[in-house]
Amino acid sequence: MKKMIEKITQFRDERGWLPFHNEKDLAISISLEANELLENFQWKSSEEAVASSAENIKEEMADVLIYLLQLADKMGIDLEEVFKKMEKNASKYPINN
Amino acid sequence: MKKMIEKITQFRDERGWLPFHNEKDLAISISLEANELLENFQWKSSEEAVASSAENIKEEMADVLIYLLQLADKMGIDLEEVFKKMEKNASKYPINN
Amino acid sequence: MKKMIEKITQFRDERGWLPFHNEKDLAISISLEANELLENFQWKSSEEAVASSAENIKEEMADVLIYLLQLADKMGIDLEEVFKKMEKNASKYPINN
Amino acid sequence: MKKMIEKITQFRDERGWLPFHNEKDLAISISLEANELLENFQWKSSEEAVASSAENIKEEMADVLIYLLQLADKMGIDLEEVFKKMEKNASKYPINN
Repeated sequence: MKKMIEKITQFRDERGWLPFHNEKDLAISISLEANELLENFQWKSSEEAVASSAENIKEEMADVLIYLLQLADKMGIDLEEVFKKMEKNASKYPINN
Repeated sequence: MKKMIEKITQFRDERGWLPFHNEKDLAISISLEANELLENFQWKSSEEAVASSAENIKEEMADVLIYLLQLADKMGIDLEEVFKKMEKNASKYPINN
Repeated sequence: MKKMIEKITQFRDERGWLPFHNEKDLAISISLEANELLENFQWKSSEEAVASSAENIKEEMADVLIYLLQLADKMGIDLEEVFKKMEKNASKYPINN
Repeated sequence: MKKMIEKITQFRDERGWLPFHNEKDLAISISLEANELLENFQWKSSEEAVASSAENIKEEMADVLIYLLQLADKMGIDLEEVFKKMEKNASKYPINN
């Protein structure tokens, strides 16, 4: 994941986008990309959507991830660390819930 | 990232959630979590939101990632591969765009 | 509002769309249109967005409303009635909250 | 619809909310409420969601409408006018599309 972040921030910096990348607009962007992903499933069953739009689904998923990693980078967040902490909290709850 | 996916799918399977995890509802879930993330920024500047809600922002970001990785696992997608392909395409375009 | 609903359902029925219009996909559609509306504000201040995209903002707002009224029609909901009920509840709370 | 807008703006002004109501945050709010509406359908069929959550669905729909009307009021937009214009455009296209 670190390598992806490096590539993304390099791509961003080569284009001079950093000054525009405030946290609020990055959060908006994540919602926008999540809905472009979701659009592939509008009026369709999961099976129909996957059969007809797998390529676009993949790319929109990558777009969500790219904005997510940019927000993480901007805020100095290590998402794998956050995940580990949440995992530890979850382990306190028994499985049969 | 592979280790995260392993942990997430283990957590899911221990709870017997897999049968409910169709692609369409996972895509819906990504939009829902993206909006719970965005809610931290409602009526606030980036600075105000980060100052008051950094912890919740982190957790909602991890939630987006968790559903994203579950959808990737369900569809047999390697997001890092998709990312590399998109990167290659991007590199065809000059930087000064 | 009733006249709008009539026009919308007539438009829908002339095209034979009713069988596809289940409540879940209509709810998805409202989120999709809300995000197409929101896209006009990405990387922009309110002022910049309104100055550059007022026409598109209007149309996306109408799209949100159209899907909202279709879901209301499908579920037999009178949104003005719901609004009145919520208003009554709100009036129980003092203004200085 | 005009009466609803009057009530909503009165409610808003009694609470002194107008200064916070910029267009960008109102657009964000519409997406947030649309996703609270959508949450009722997560992991459920339309039938299951309507059977278990009709009341909440109604209220979230009213919330989407309330923010939509506030954005329309803020921007001086008459949504019924926009709708009529879109309807006129649509009527140019034959039905069998």
